[in-house]
Amino acid sequence: MDWGSDLWDQHDVIERHTQSGLDLLERYVKFVKDRAEVEQNYAKQLRNLSKKYSRRGVKEDQDTKLINQQPFQDVLNELNNYAAHREQLSEIMTVNICVELSRNLQELRQERKNHLCEVKKAQQNLESSFKLLETSKKRFEKEWREAEKANQQTERVQQEVSATKADVEKAKQHAHFRVHLADECKNEYASQLQKYNQEQNNLYHSEIPSVYKKLQEMEERCIRLLADGYVQFSETEKNMLPNINKCLDAIISTGRNINEKQVHTLTHTHTSDVLAVCMERSYSDSSLT
Amino acid sequence: MDWGSDLWDQHDVIERHTQSGLDLLERYVKFVKDRAEVEQNYAKQLRNLSKKYSRRGVKEDQDTKLINQQPFQDVLNELNNYAAHREQLSEIMTVNICVELSRNLQELRQERKNHLCEVKKAQQNLESSFKLLETSKKRFEKEWREAEKANQQTERVQQEVSATKADVEKAKQHAHFRVHLADECKNEYASQLQKYNQEQNNLYHSEIPSVYKKLQEMEERCIRLLADGYVQFSETEKNMLPNINKCLDAIISTGRNINEKQVHTLTHTHTSDVLAVCMERSYSDSSLT
Repeated sequence: MDWGSDLWDQHDVIERHTQSGLDLLERYVKFVKDRAEVEQNYAKQLRNLSKKYSRRGVKEDQDTKLINQQPFQDVLNELNNYAAHREQLSEIMTVNICVELSRNLQELRQERKNHLCEVKKAQQNLESSFKLLETSKKRFEKEWREAEKANQQTERVQQEVSATKADVEKAKQHAHFRVHLADECKNEYASQLQKYNQEQNNLYHSEIPSVYKKLQEMEERCIRLLADGYVQFSETEKNMLPNINKCLDAIISTGRNINEKQVHTLTHTHTSDVLAVCMERSYSDSSLT
Repeated sequence: MDWGSDLWDQHDVIERHTQSGLDLLERYVKFVKDRAEVEQNYAKQLRNLSKKYSRRGVKEDQDTKLINQQPFQDVLNELNNYAAHREQLSEIMTVNICVELSRNLQELRQERKNHLCEVKKAQQNLESSFKLLETSKKRFEKEWREAEKANQQTERVQQEVSATKADVEKAKQHAHFRVHLADECKNEYASQLQKYNQEQNNLYHSEIPSVYKKLQEMEERCIRLLADGYVQFSETEKNMLPNINKCLDAIISTGRNINEKQVHTLTHTHTSDVLAVCMERSYSDSSLT
């Protein structure tokens, strides 16, 4: 379908349709903005979670505790990295989609307004031309009647018995003047009619189709922007997934690298050994021998 | 390091250390529970977002609007699927990690309590044995002194000039009785000492090492559970990523399948054509010919 040739008399439909297209684009920008906020909020909650369970900065009374809690701390650090990637996703969505599409939206709105103004202006020009045509037609009709009247008057004077040659001549001259005037108005009316017909033809066969074609192209760009926006929305996240995956792999490595046989960090602080203590505490009484 | 042989006299250290291991496991369970809540909340926000921008159920005045908004609706539907996968992640984390580890934690707590009780009971038994030893030692010492006194009395009686044979015999019999009694106490003390030494030896060389070995194994299981918990935490999400990827791919397909040249659904509702209208409005005035 070609708007220029098929929808030349559907101005209101085109006006509403292009408005609805831009509204949808605006709606999408708001949607992505909201999604970016959800993402930001999610990242914040993950960061808080990491902070809440993190022991950093807290003085531990036992070194062993710290050493055994290190893997958990590593998990929390990775969760913090994870949150940073989600935050980045939120920022890229805002900058690459919202800001960019808002700018395009503003340009498209102005472009649509200009095109619709162009149509209105051309229609107003044709209306002005039509008014001039009506005026010249009325003037021609009036002058035509005057000329007829003058011709009839000449005939009447010629048939009057009392009329002098001078009277007849005067009437003839007057009629001649009137007919001449009517002819001039007729020519003007004819010229105006031709001009109006040309203008009307031009408006419906050239100007309006040309503007509607531009509006159709604008609408197509709007739809393309929206479609590309959907793709970009997902691709931004898809591009981030390998980083998310790395964080998850790091946590898995942390878990797998823990050797439960090797993490016993209890320090052997006693000075005596079991034999010595048993010897000391064992009773040997010489009196018994 | 082997707790049984190396840390036999570090009861308090082992008690604190195993407590701290279980506390860390409990802390991790709480952490995963919180993470599952963050995930649940995130999914809820995504669902709300999809609902907010969804036009489902809203009667549209124009079919064209609905058709052009269908791809956006598809994007919103995929976001809803995305949210469902995040919800599922939250549920799997709760059931497979929190519930499972909580159950293990309860069992480990009971096991630790039993082992520590066992040590305490064995130590109490040794203390009782030590008290019996002290008692039998004191009794032996007392009887020994009595026997010495009786022997000295016999010597004194033998040297007394006024003493009769009967007196000497009586003193000898008494001394004999006392020495016999002291010998019996000495045997009892010797037997008690041997028993105590055996018990003490058994406690420090067998009972305590055996319990500490079990505590060490328990601690190792606790660490393994925690380490596996870290792995499971990430693997649950990694297993979900292909589904997330599918949702994102579906959105990309939606965007790529939009052909901006084909989505113009404006209906050609006018009955007149441009030529007919121009003809109708064109002025042809017969008076002009």
